[in-house]
Amino acid sequence: MTAGSIIVWEGLGTAVLILLGVGVVANVVLRPTLGTGGGWLMITFGWGFAVFAGASIAAPSGAHLNPAVTIGLAVAGSTPWSEVPFYLIGQLVGAFVGACVGWLAYKANFDKNVEEDPEGNRDTRGIFCTGPVVARSGWNVITEAVATFVLVFWVLSNPAAQAPDGAGVPQFGNGALGYAAVAFVVIGIGCSLGGPTGYAINPARDLGPRLAYALLPIRGKGSAEWGYAWVPIVGPIIGAVLAGLLSAGVA
Amino acid sequence: MTAGSIIVWEGLGTAVLILLGVGVVANVVLRPTLGTGGGWLMITFGWGFAVFAGASIAAPSGAHLNPAVTIGLAVAGSTPWSEVPFYLIGQLVGAFVGACVGWLAYKANFDKNVEEDPEGNRDTRGIFCTGPVVARSGWNVITEAVATFVLVFWVLSNPAAQAPDGAGVPQFGNGALGYAAVAFVVIGIGCSLGGPTGYAINPARDLGPRLAYALLPIRGKGSAEWGYAWVPIVGPIIGAVLAGLLSAGVA
Amino acid sequence: MTAGSIIVWEGLGTAVLILLGVGVVANVVLRPTLGTGGGWLMITFGWGFAVFAGASIAAPSGAHLNPAVTIGLAVAGSTPWSEVPFYLIGQLVGAFVGACVGWLAYKANFDKNVEEDPEGNRDTRGIFCTGPVVARSGWNVITEAVATFVLVFWVLSNPAAQAPDGAGVPQFGNGALGYAAVAFVVIGIGCSLGGPTGYAINPARDLGPRLAYALLPIRGKGSAEWGYAWVPIVGPIIGAVLAGLLSAGVA
Amino acid sequence: MTAGSIIVWEGLGTAVLILLGVGVVANVVLRPTLGTGGGWLMITFGWGFAVFAGASIAAPSGAHLNPAVTIGLAVAGSTPWSEVPFYLIGQLVGAFVGACVGWLAYKANFDKNVEEDPEGNRDTRGIFCTGPVVARSGWNVITEAVATFVLVFWVLSNPAAQAPDGAGVPQFGNGALGYAAVAFVVIGIGCSLGGPTGYAINPARDLGPRLAYALLPIRGKGSAEWGYAWVPIVGPIIGAVLAGLLSAGVA
Repeated sequence: MTAGSIIVWEGLGTAVLILLGVGVVANVVLRPTLGTGGGWLMITFGWGFAVFAGASIAAPSGAHLNPAVTIGLAVAGSTPWSEVPFYLIGQLVGAFVGACVGWLAYKANFDKNVEEDPEGNRDTRGIFCTGPVVARSGWNVITEAVATFVLVFWVLSNPAAQAPDGAGVPQFGNGALGYAAVAFVVIGIGCSLGGPTGYAINPARDLGPRLAYALLPIRGKGSAEWGYAWVPIVGPIIGAVLAGLLSAGVA
Repeated sequence: MTAGSIIVWEGLGTAVLILLGVGVVANVVLRPTLGTGGGWLMITFGWGFAVFAGASIAAPSGAHLNPAVTIGLAVAGSTPWSEVPFYLIGQLVGAFVGACVGWLAYKANFDKNVEEDPEGNRDTRGIFCTGPVVARSGWNVITEAVATFVLVFWVLSNPAAQAPDGAGVPQFGNGALGYAAVAFVVIGIGCSLGGPTGYAINPARDLGPRLAYALLPIRGKGSAEWGYAWVPIVGPIIGAVLAGLLSAGVA
Repeated sequence: MTAGSIIVWEGLGTAVLILLGVGVVANVVLRPTLGTGGGWLMITFGWGFAVFAGASIAAPSGAHLNPAVTIGLAVAGSTPWSEVPFYLIGQLVGAFVGACVGWLAYKANFDKNVEEDPEGNRDTRGIFCTGPVVARSGWNVITEAVATFVLVFWVLSNPAAQAPDGAGVPQFGNGALGYAAVAFVVIGIGCSLGGPTGYAINPARDLGPRLAYALLPIRGKGSAEWGYAWVPIVGPIIGAVLAGLLSAGVA
Repeated sequence: MTAGSIIVWEGLGTAVLILLGVGVVANVVLRPTLGTGGGWLMITFGWGFAVFAGASIAAPSGAHLNPAVTIGLAVAGSTPWSEVPFYLIGQLVGAFVGACVGWLAYKANFDKNVEEDPEGNRDTRGIFCTGPVVARSGWNVITEAVATFVLVFWVLSNPAAQAPDGAGVPQFGNGALGYAAVAFVVIGIGCSLGGPTGYAINPARDLGPRLAYALLPIRGKGSAEWGYAWVPIVGPIIGAVLAGLLSAGVA
């Protein structure tokens, strides 16, 4: 696959993933919306089906959508290291663009939120990127590493989920099943391991929208908390490398 | 496929879609029901499985159920423009009929709702058609366009979801998978992008039931708010055309 | 298929359906349980996956589990009328047995419920059988007929959902897909059309557990409300016959 | 399959199952988390997708993950009794390890929970293992036996769910469907029969984490309540044996 195709498909898929993911948190967190206060289960379903939609779209490039998945596949020998940079570029750019479009979709609601309460947009960072309930970065890294390990080890255990188009079967038949399966696993991780840190489990999912939050002209917004930004990068990479090594070991 | 068959199958499928969709909002919004106050997640699941049921039934006509999908497929070259009018007729008539049947199913509850509170049916318009939380029509159009873009671009990225019967595989095998996939995407869009405007993402879904609301003898009902009716038509069409163009571009 | 096999498999499947269905309502309605107050969405998921579990088990007999489905298939010409009585016997006996086992599973909780509040078991009838929020039997019949029409017309529109074993494909492959599809439709109907009357949509589902409620030694129980028992029989049969006729007409 | 492979795959799969299962309850029960107070439906989805993730990973060993399933399959003649001990060892060790990792993922939250309220960790036993709402051990055994009967009888009724790899079809195609099906059944059992005792339905799921709770240095923790530990062992085994016998009888 050409570098350009990888960037385009990973970019499109990750943009849709982040657009929907940012959207569901905005829907729950902002007060003037129809889904305000919708709860954690709704957030996990929103992100899960965001993965499903984005992954289906990015099928031509294998639908990684996540540097941790790309690195895990590279460690396990399934993705050539020479392609890894193109995956990461597509994922990061896509995540940034998706977050910006998500803000556009909720623009009137962000504005109204700060009109109703001048402090109302102070905590909107959580709509874009993750943060810990209890800020202890060592333990936060462990939580992100454990959650990402589950995701990447699961992907590596299920060959068809990695490259649905390569198996010689109709793309949608096998693919949809694989993407629904990934969505179920991501919903499960969100319900189960999202409590402490908001389950980034994907460096691009956190970094791209954090940058968007820092740059977008959101009225009354708070800090992008760059001091935490390394945790959802380092934690997922540790988890992905461990999953890749274990997978290569038991295979 | 004959014009008559298109109208019949799109009409039946869209009627079931809107019957179930109107039903879930009635269940949540009206006070004398078993699901009253059920929340946004329940509304998104109700509409998602409404899509699933309606699409399975409309399989013979390709299960568009949505003028935005039909237009997107026509722009991308998958559906002949000559067939488009028949799809739209079936969808609109089906949506109107489905909304009327939904009202019949909740007739006793509408009556009781206004008995318990004379103002109780003033806001029942939201059971039938969509409206914005923050009324700024430019931004509302953008929200509807973005949400519809995701739906239509996803459909165009997944050939089997478009015409499950044409692929030479057993209708239900591939079809059910495709329809469940569409349902998951619609649930995701509802969770994520439904907060600002109620995710019409389908001109027939909004216009048909709005007409029903205007005409039905609902005691104590409020305005059908025709001033907003153009938004859930124009927004979805813009999103669908952009999706069709982008899909044709990257394909 | 022999009469005995039909009775055994329909009985086993319907017993599991009703055991799980009665269970989820008990979990939500009784106070001393882990799921108390779980809400309508949980009830619809509980019943939906109850259908899934019961239908998978009853695959050898075609997994009707519901006199309305059996009658709809007979009207449409898919099931011989001579087999209908055996389906109904299995369904009714299974529903009665499943309700009794459901009571056993919650026996300690029924007892505690009445200990904590002497009036607490007065309304436990709703755990077993359905009832209207607004008691107007004509409209209640219409609601049940509409909801059952959706279920049966959907089944008749999807050949693989009717007889997954007869299609020459591995039972589980096609079957599971079909049963999951039915479960999604039933969840959708529950969310959307369950609000007025509790969506019996199945005469055996209502009659069998109502009889169990009348006979079981539940401390402090209320009336079985036999005066309403005809509604969830007549409504679903009307809906099923209409679905069978329409299906035969458009096919 | 070698004894070592059985232990490794059952251990990995059960560890992921329990990690996610312990996680979702911690998320709901501990106060300083994002999902606190998330409700029973979220717990059932968390455990259901935990089964899905763990079972997909343990596909090489048939994905039992549960001594009750192993015993049921042995009674029904599908799994050789000589392999049963290796399954049980893998399941128990995996469950213990998974619970410990789950605690690590929520370590900072356990600590904060007891800081905010010195009594706050007294009831954290429920994060690890099950307990009855109404403590009457005879009825609690019956509830666990009934719920496990449904699970195991369902598995035995669906050959593809037992050994997806042995059927000569691509692992993921059939397997994912089978594992999603099991997940749906487990969600259904949780909604419907989890109310009285917390649906262990799996001796390893209860015993391994109970041991972990007893041994882990959780600040302010309460008793592991060993007096109840026999119930979620005996109840599920009774249910599994009955399911195995009935399945052998009707087959």
